[in-house]
Amino acid sequence: MAVKAVVLLSGGLDSTTVCAIARSEGREIHALTIDYNQRHRKELDAARRVAQSSGVQEHLILSLDLSLFGGSSLTDMNMEVQKGKALETIGTSIPSSYVPARNTVFLSLALAYAETRAASELWIGVNCVDYSGYPDCRPEFLKSFEETANLGTRAGINGARFSVRAPLLNLSKGEIIRKGLSLGVDYSQTLTCYSPTSEGLACGQCESCLLRLAGFREAGIEDPIPYVNRSRR
Amino acid sequence: MAVKAVVLLSGGLDSTTVCAIARSEGREIHALTIDYNQRHRKELDAARRVAQSSGVQEHLILSLDLSLFGGSSLTDMNMEVQKGKALETIGTSIPSSYVPARNTVFLSLALAYAETRAASELWIGVNCVDYSGYPDCRPEFLKSFEETANLGTRAGINGARFSVRAPLLNLSKGEIIRKGLSLGVDYSQTLTCYSPTSEGLACGQCESCLLRLAGFREAGIEDPIPYVNRSRR
Repeated sequence: MAVKAVVLLSGGLDSTTVCAIARSEGREIHALTIDYNQRHRKELDAARRVAQSSGVQEHLILSLDLSLFGGSSLTDMNMEVQKGKALETIGTSIPSSYVPARNTVFLSLALAYAETRAASELWIGVNCVDYSGYPDCRPEFLKSFEETANLGTRAGINGARFSVRAPLLNLSKGEIIRKGLSLGVDYSQTLTCYSPTSEGLACGQCESCLLRLAGFREAGIEDPIPYVNRSRR
Repeated sequence: MAVKAVVLLSGGLDSTTVCAIARSEGREIHALTIDYNQRHRKELDAARRVAQSSGVQEHLILSLDLSLFGGSSLTDMNMEVQKGKALETIGTSIPSSYVPARNTVFLSLALAYAETRAASELWIGVNCVDYSGYPDCRPEFLKSFEETANLGTRAGINGARFSVRAPLLNLSKGEIIRKGLSLGVDYSQTLTCYSPTSEGLACGQCESCLLRLAGFREAGIEDPIPYVNRSRR
């Protein structure tokens, strides 16, 4: 019987690759997308497209209005998404796009979902190479969450072991893209931009776009999605 | 300057008492109620009443539809709330009212809120005496969550320390009630029942009612809320 896994799927490049890796390892995938009232709503459409073409068992979209708390440029319309940073400065400090405790919240929700489906693995696309400076992308955080998960659930008490799988943790963006392509990922379905146009064009200037574009350059491949001001980069 | 605290406030007896304790210790209280699509919707009205009369700085109600996952009689309308259990059997096994990973999810949300308000404490009304068998009410779970919180946040990276405060952890229900009364808590504002009538009358038969009623008996005080079949118990 296939091992059941909850995969956090945003519809971006990283989580889409994670989904493909989980599938390549034979997991039965329960994909979870969190609609946290992020300003980049087009991401949800991307998540739906990816889930449909990834052979997942089930795909749930859970609404959670994190904009109620504020404190991040991704949810607070009064804060601006930073654009045009020099690539080498990304990751040196925590950016305004940091959503407070986001991965703790997302992994908790993945855990709740996993427990109801008797899934033992939580897959997440965090990365500590091009990690953009978020504290909750570090391996020691993931390890600690695993411990908390095993202590805080019925399944944990009954001897099941939850594990957090973060297969991108030590890969560069270019390596992630090459890995995904080797598994047949269609990156034209994904959307990474924090600030896309209403037509779904990526801005090409936010941190997320800058890291993505650098990744495609590193992989020596053209990014298949359209950007503002030019059809492709 | 007052220490800022996020208090998880359901509107039940325990969290209302926690709110009063935090206030008695001079905390600036940011109360957080999670509307998780629980069947006992009247609980939210109780939370509003309690927040209004507790001198909190701010009260947020966050919607999070945990019924999407199912797996608990508190959110799944196809599951029945267990009633009429013998009091001595409560806590010996995990009941159907267990909401998967609930306290992990709730503490994560409290953490996100705390980080945006520069609050360092997360207060929660868990209890391991009359704890009704939930795994996420155990002290080792709370300790582990604290560790995860400090690793997974910007505040944690910057040297702030989050602490989880669970002042009811080792108190019996009777002791909780006596403590609350000594702090001026008006328990007529609270609602504990998992299955109240549409008029807001407590059923008197679910685990939560049974534990509450036993607590008032232990404290030698009459429960001020109305129950089905009799005006008071």
